[in-house]
Amino acid sequence: MNKDAFKKYGYQFIDWVADYLDGVEDFPVTSHVAPGEIRRQIPIHPPDREEPLDRVFKDFCEIVLPGMAHWQHPSWFAYFPASNSPPSILAELLTAGLGAQCMVWQTSPAAQELEESVIDWLRQMLGLPEGMSGVIQDTASTATLCALVCARESATGFRSNEQGVTDRLVVYASKEAHSGVEKGVKITGYGRENLRYIPVDASFAMIPEALAQAIAADRQNGLIPACVVATVGTTASAALDPLVPIGRICRENDIWLHVDAAYAGTAAILPEKQWIFNGVEQADSLVFNPHKWMLTNFDCSAYFVRDESALIRAFEIQPEYLKTPVDTSVKNYRDWGIQLGRRFRALKLWFVIRSYGVEGLQRIIREHIRLAKLFESWVAAHAHFEVVAPVDLGLVCFRLNNGQSEDALNDLNKKLLKKINGQTDIFLTHAVLGSTYVLRMAIGSRLTKERHVAKAWQTILRVAFG
Amino acid sequence: MNKDAFKKYGYQFIDWVADYLDGVEDFPVTSHVAPGEIRRQIPIHPPDREEPLDRVFKDFCEIVLPGMAHWQHPSWFAYFPASNSPPSILAELLTAGLGAQCMVWQTSPAAQELEESVIDWLRQMLGLPEGMSGVIQDTASTATLCALVCARESATGFRSNEQGVTDRLVVYASKEAHSGVEKGVKITGYGRENLRYIPVDASFAMIPEALAQAIAADRQNGLIPACVVATVGTTASAALDPLVPIGRICRENDIWLHVDAAYAGTAAILPEKQWIFNGVEQADSLVFNPHKWMLTNFDCSAYFVRDESALIRAFEIQPEYLKTPVDTSVKNYRDWGIQLGRRFRALKLWFVIRSYGVEGLQRIIREHIRLAKLFESWVAAHAHFEVVAPVDLGLVCFRLNNGQSEDALNDLNKKLLKKINGQTDIFLTHAVLGSTYVLRMAIGSRLTKERHVAKAWQTILRVAFG
Repeated sequence: MNKDAFKKYGYQFIDWVADYLDGVEDFPVTSHVAPGEIRRQIPIHPPDREEPLDRVFKDFCEIVLPGMAHWQHPSWFAYFPASNSPPSILAELLTAGLGAQCMVWQTSPAAQELEESVIDWLRQMLGLPEGMSGVIQDTASTATLCALVCARESATGFRSNEQGVTDRLVVYASKEAHSGVEKGVKITGYGRENLRYIPVDASFAMIPEALAQAIAADRQNGLIPACVVATVGTTASAALDPLVPIGRICRENDIWLHVDAAYAGTAAILPEKQWIFNGVEQADSLVFNPHKWMLTNFDCSAYFVRDESALIRAFEIQPEYLKTPVDTSVKNYRDWGIQLGRRFRALKLWFVIRSYGVEGLQRIIREHIRLAKLFESWVAAHAHFEVVAPVDLGLVCFRLNNGQSEDALNDLNKKLLKKINGQTDIFLTHAVLGSTYVLRMAIGSRLTKERHVAKAWQTILRVAFG
Repeated sequence: MNKDAFKKYGYQFIDWVADYLDGVEDFPVTSHVAPGEIRRQIPIHPPDREEPLDRVFKDFCEIVLPGMAHWQHPSWFAYFPASNSPPSILAELLTAGLGAQCMVWQTSPAAQELEESVIDWLRQMLGLPEGMSGVIQDTASTATLCALVCARESATGFRSNEQGVTDRLVVYASKEAHSGVEKGVKITGYGRENLRYIPVDASFAMIPEALAQAIAADRQNGLIPACVVATVGTTASAALDPLVPIGRICRENDIWLHVDAAYAGTAAILPEKQWIFNGVEQADSLVFNPHKWMLTNFDCSAYFVRDESALIRAFEIQPEYLKTPVDTSVKNYRDWGIQLGRRFRALKLWFVIRSYGVEGLQRIIREHIRLAKLFESWVAAHAHFEVVAPVDLGLVCFRLNNGQSEDALNDLNKKLLKKINGQTDIFLTHAVLGSTYVLRMAIGSRLTKERHVAKAWQTILRVAFG
């Protein structure tokens, strides 16, 4: 493809993205294809000969697009948002054009140094302690896995790196913690039996006293408490584990404290929400995802540590072919996580933060929270609906409650969600809190306005009663 | 940013990428900035107010670009290539525009099904056994880590997932295996002491007899051999571990065989290079990176397994909030690796394979290998240079040899490389084979032509003697 052809297709694709962003609301929010429907349209064998890009693009529009869910749709209220923005998309284009592999400083000094700068911008924006340093990872699963490894090495004096996991090390998290903790515990050799799920209170936040008791019991049984994962903004209900007492317990017991703020972290850029991080100075590590709520397209996860040397010691490898003349005077991020190869993810963060400014980002997040509170007020005011968990951020957990038994209510709400997602143009997902099946209304798409939230409420009422 | 502004900047950035691809040869191949030089130009604090994208783009050109190494430069002969192509870049633009998070089928059916199709295209192109299924991961480090976890669970009957690593499990790899194996062994709780480096022969390939002996010795000492990592195309010299005898040893001893073909795998699309995978039907898992040599921009790593149920069992998690109505009838790739969140990477592979066709890709790879053999012939014909390892693919390991002592020669070649990279417009890296310091000439950029290789040889001669 020569320069002119690249420009021709490039303009065409830019037009397509521009139209898509502008008109995403006109697409069905999720795809209603049946399993296998897309795959049947893809040839079984790869083509021997080159095909014109026109034909590939045509297939993209006709085969792929009908099978996409539209995460940027203003009526996407499912899971957590994967927010995106024009500056982020344009930066990704430059990143792809450069095609740099940023494993060490030498393989692209600007990528490393911009990452160091931008990650510190994020630290300041979130009000994290000055001593913390950070690195961009792909997802919170990866970052939490890194934290579990660091905790393990901290508990064993770096013996498990060398000899394997010979002790019985224990990890603690609330019942509401993300499944990534369980996955990480399986991968890093703690074993799932050594993960303790700590009970939660009525707001679905970890009960610190229960944590302290579990730690004491394990100690008495000769086990080694190694890591506590506190969640600031759980997946089911955005519950906030109390960092102050949890942090105190961790310090008293010399246990690694990892804070999973994957979703909620972004809210800490608001002065009025800074309290969600009260006690964060006790954390050894923390993760939050700009790709969830900070207008940066997936993937982009920010991982912070209090002691970068401990992180590096746990992950460092020094093969001859990766040695460079400047290793002692630069940061080589290949030693800050699992992957050797690294994308230039700092560029899109830089574009987003500068294009919106901190105040611009604050306005958007603040509006999302206002819309969630508004939706909460509508639910609370309705005789047959109820709010099931505190609403501090952009997520509302609610259910239909017509006074039936709990089992019947769970069934009723399951059916309600199925109808909403199958028959209307909004998309929600569910969770189970305690034994209560709840619908989750997660507000965080850049394009979501009050009218979309109002329409969603009318849609839910119509499906429930109409 | 409204639609018109997005288009304006979009066209501008497309023009920039088009010019960059066309003129990358005019950039210095690596950056010569000093550590800290870029970072000093980035403000310490994030901006409160929004900034115009013009200014951000200007800074990209003036601050970032001088600090980039240009991996697509035709005189980039360092490390392994991170090849890229116009169709891949354009597909990344669409992926960024869509902004979909493809963790489960429901969150984008087309992404899952296209991935399933395209990964099977790759399987066919590489001549891998029909029963193998695959998944796209980010890097070979991650894929090898997955293989180590699967091997661990296979050796313990999935006990280590539950109880932690209570046995002493052993991993085997050649002395020349990638550092990702060591990193994976640290992360997954085997412990570095339980990684055996098997000696290599004169071609730097693993000696199967030495592997068999190491396994027998460990068994005798009550250890449990769990995993063998065979490398097809080592990082230092692209050496090829012999899969037939290694596979036989693994089967006889019931040990997981993981094949790391991160770089070399792409060469197997050539009928005349299919032999590098002789014996691959014995492998339990295999990784190769389309982002290295198959014109697909970083990151894109293909991980294949013989028994997908074992992979899924090792990584599966089933939290309520991720359950969907179709879970029993679709593949949910979140259970095929570490990360829950997943980018839509299949799209760029689809664009690349269709735009070039298998024959087009074969022509490019074949030409790179021809250029490597040509360079090898020039080195071999020179009285004071020598080729240090067999050249089967696109990599030539060589050194200056004027008859001095080995120590002096290592010193001489170190200085030679420093001069080449510091004073000329080509970029090479080094390795140590046995105790021999060698220069690595890795040919694999889409833009590299015979004239670039010829110029590189003239440059090396000039620096060495002139």
